Order: sequence, then C-alpha cells, then structure tokens
Amino acid sequence: MHEALTSLQKRNNQQLEYWLSQFPHSGQTLIEAMHYGLVLGGKRARPFLVYITGQMLGCQLDDLDTPACAVECIHAYSLIHDDLPAMDNDALRRGLPTCHIKFDEATAILTGDALQTMAFSILSDGKLSSEAEQNRIKMIKVLAQASGANGMCLGQALDIEAEGRRISLEELETIHHNKTGALLKCAVRLGALAAGSKSDDILPQLDQYADAIGLAFQVQDDILDVIGDTDTLGKPQGSDQALKKSTYPALLGLDGAVNKADTLLTEALQALETIPYNTKLLEEFARYVIERKN
Amino acid sequence: MHEALTSLQKRNNQQLEYWLSQFPHSGQTLIEAMHYGLVLGGKRARPFLVYITGQMLGCQLDDLDTPACAVECIHAYSLIHDDLPAMDNDALRRGLPTCHIKFDEATAILTGDALQTMAFSILSDGKLSSEAEQNRIKMIKVLAQASGANGMCLGQALDIEAEGRRISLEELETIHHNKTGALLKCAVRLGALAAGSKSDDILPQLDQYADAIGLAFQVQDDILDVIGDTDTLGKPQGSDQALKKSTYPALLGLDGAVNKADTLLTEALQALETIPYNTKLLEEFARYVIERKN
Repeated sequence: MHEALTSLQKRNNQQLEYWLSQFPHSGQTLIEAMHYGLVLGGKRARPFLVYITGQMLGCQLDDLDTPACAVECIHAYSLIHDDLPAMDNDALRRGLPTCHIKFDEATAILTGDALQTMAFSILSDGKLSSEAEQNRIKMIKVLAQASGANGMCLGQALDIEAEGRRISLEELETIHHNKTGALLKCAVRLGALAAGSKSDDILPQLDQYADAIGLAFQVQDDILDVIGDTDTLGKPQGSDQALKKSTYPALLGLDGAVNKADTLLTEALQALETIPYNTKLLEEFARYVIERKN
Repeated sequence: MHEALTSLQKRNNQQLEYWLSQFPHSGQTLIEAMHYGLVLGGKRARPFLVYITGQMLGCQLDDLDTPACAVECIHAYSLIHDDLPAMDNDALRRGLPTCHIKFDEATAILTGDALQTMAFSILSDGKLSSEAEQNRIKMIKVLAQASGANGMCLGQALDIEAEGRRISLEELETIHHNKTGALLKCAVRLGALAAGSKSDDILPQLDQYADAIGLAFQVQDDILDVIGDTDTLGKPQGSDQALKKSTYPALLGLDGAVNKADTLLTEALQALETIPYNTKLLEEFARYVIERKN
C-alpha cells in the first residue's frame, strides 16, 4: 500500500498545484500561503481514500482527481484555522512553521477561508466522468454536510468547549466523529459517488468502514501524542496534555486506547467483508491507520 | 423601494432562520453565534439584488430564496472574519458587539467557517424552480468564484497589504472590485441564473450595472466613514483613518469621491437602459447605494 500512497500523494500534489496555478494573482501573498498550507507536507489520507474507493469500483484515476483535490482543500483549511493562536495555538505542523507563524495571523485566516472556497470551486468546476457528473451536486452536498456546522466545524467547536474539563467517552466520540470522522467518511463517499449509481448498494458498508477508521484515526492520533516524538510527528508531542484535552489515553489509559483502536480495526474489516469488490487497499489502509507513527 | 427592501429583508431573515433551525445541535454555542452573525441586523443588500434581478426576469420569490440565502451567508462570514483582532479589529458591527467580542475569537473563526460552508450547503440543497435547476452548478461556480482567491478573499488580502501605504486609484479599484464588488455582482448574476436561459442575452449589461454599483457602494462606504456618525453607521466612524487605509476621499478629496459616486451611478443607469425588462427597482437600488446614510 505504501507504494500506492506515495504515488497518489504525488498525483494529488500535482493536481493541487494545477488548481493553484489557475489563480491570476500568483505572486500574491494569499496564493503563496495557500500553496504553503495545501501542498507542503501531509499524508493525503483523504485523497487516498477517494482514489482507492473509486478505483475499487472501476473509476479511472482521472475521474477521481476532482473530489480528491476538493476534500484535501477542506482538510488543509481546517488545519490552518485549528493552528491559530485563538484555537490550538500550534507553531509546528508537518515539520514546518504553521501558516500564521510563516506568514501572519490575518493571512492565515484568509488562506483558510480561500482554501475552503477553493474546495467548492474545484468540485463545481473540475473534470468528472459522465457517470460521476450525475452525482456532482450530491458530491457538493456531501462535502458541505461533512465540513460545516453538522460536521467538522461542529466537532472543532465541541472540542474547544471540552478543553479543561473531563468529558465522558460518549462525548469524546461525538467530538471525533464530527471533527475527524466526518471528513474521512466524506472522502470514502466521494470516491463511491464518483462511480455513479454503481455504488448505491454498498454505501452502508462503506459508511460503517469509514466511521470505524475515522474514529481509529483519532484514537491513534491521541496515542501518538503520548508516545510519539516531535520529529516523527512533525508537530509538538504532548500538545493535547498541554491544552488539557480529553483524549482516549486520558479516559481509557494507554492500553485501553490501544485496545479501542484494535476493536475499531476489526469493525472496519468486518464492514468490508460483504463488499463484492477488491477491498485490499481499503483493508491495508485501515491497518495503516492504527500502525502509523505520524 | 424601501418598502420592497424591508419586506425582502424580513423574508430573507425568515429563510435564514429556517436553515439555521435545520442544524441538529441548536443549543450549541456555534449555532448561536451563527445566528448572531447571520440574522441580527444588516441591510440584506445582496439578497435584495438576487430577488429584484430574478423578479425582473419573471422568477417567483420562492425560487429566489435559495441563492439569496447562500449569498448572505458568504457576506455574513466575511464580516465576522474581517472584524477579528488580526484583521480590522472592530468591536462594533450593525450596532452590536462583533462576534469575537460577544462570544470569543475561536468561536468567531469557526462561525465564519461554518457560515461559508452553509452557503454551499444551501445552494446545493435548497429549492429551485425547474429552470433554475439547470443552472444550479453554474450558481455554485459563480458563488465560489466571487468569494475566494480570485474574488472577495483576494480583495481582503490586497486591502490588508495596502494598509499604511499610499496606493494608486487603480490599486484601490482592484481592491474594491474584489473585496466588495465581486459578491454584489455575484448576487445580480445569481438572480439572473435563477431565471434559466432567459437571462443569457442581458448578462453583459447586468455585469456592467453590478460593477458600477459595487464600486459605488464602496465609495459611499468610504464617504460615510468620514462624514457619518457611529450611531447611524452601527460601526465606528473614522475607522479607515485609524487603520491608515487608502480610501476614495483620501485619494480624491471628499468632493472628488462624491463626484466619483455620481459618475458610477450614471454608468449603472446607462447599463440598465438597454435591458428590455422593468428595471425600476434596480435603478432605485443604484440611487440608494450612493444616497444611504449607513
């Protein structure tokens, strides 16, 4: 899978560069900051999920570039805004100074804003196959649902509200289903929608898979914040504790959190069992989610 | 026209309330702050332009609510982010404390983010007539184009870069064509697109009209910042000068700026002359733009 991940990362970066090159004011600080926040570093987990879900269903890579780029723009914008002083106040991301450190706070706010718009610009304007075209509006809806006040933004708001107080496991899951899970699930759905009506029957299983890996992704993030090191993470180790955030290790202990991740992996793999396509890469990605070191 | 403006303001507010009520977490601070930033106060100039352009072309109000709400969400998000301490650092807006004062900075950032998403959610999901439905994707494209790194966000970035230095009239026009003009023009286009292919022939004239009133809107804003009073404006008088912003009165003198506004009004009215529909409300709106006191 690592070969596929690297190759699709590269492909996605080229596509993102292409979209950035379409802006007329390329020398402008705003465009430079968008490039900085969007293209430099990052795993491209969400584009990867779009690509491998769509490919499994018979799509060409060409026909998946549009949703893959759109979902990455949303992810990149959310990182830039989450890192702001008023939010998580992080100085390091992907091994580099965060956007407001490299540029300034005003630029970081505008850069996030413009990257969010860019996601919808790409998804309304980018190339799609004729099967995917019939799902274009549905894709835009799915992306908006996952990103806004009943998805990612809500998760971040709940997360901030929960800082400094002990919350229940249920509350923690609600936060992460929204904050991290919603966009990962959206990536899988976008890949499925790009295959046209072909994917209709397996959407429930794909949702189940995505819910499990979405949560597992966050559990592993929380674990790495405790046991990882800053160099490998590319962001400061121990920052959850510094912000007094409730995390899975804090609520379940480190062993409990590792068990939770294993249970979620099992759930993800079970969801794939009834899918009558080659789910090998989705399986490998689920394993990667809880085995990754950054 | 004032009767129509008041009645359409009310209609638009009810529609925005409806969309906000669709979020499942209605008690959440994020949703409260979205309500605060979106519904309380404001002239609803952009929705008004959507409604009167669409109505002129024979659309029912019902069929214009969707684009009218979407464009207002973008406008509201941009005000919340522009007011942030790192941007214009304004404490008063529409006669009320700005969002980051009423709530806090993190909430204001997320509220702006979620309102932007809400615009695209509404435009991809809201009711449209069958003629407008064929233009739905085009509407989403137009809104994204107007809002992002080749529209409103670019304008705000250029505006920030220009603070504290004297710029040319040409630079000032580029800033405002993007910062204010792009979204007003988008509102007119959305109204036209809601009428289906019927509006194709008059799009150039409508663009010309919108370009002129977009710039006039900003010229009048600059004039009011000099001669208005804080109570009527609902925001602090003299804040441009405090931020050492280049403005039309600063570059042209107060009389020069008033003449500029008049010239733009003439341009707007000329553009309407060849439109074979009843342009009365568009005419009145153009006059209102340069006669308003807030």
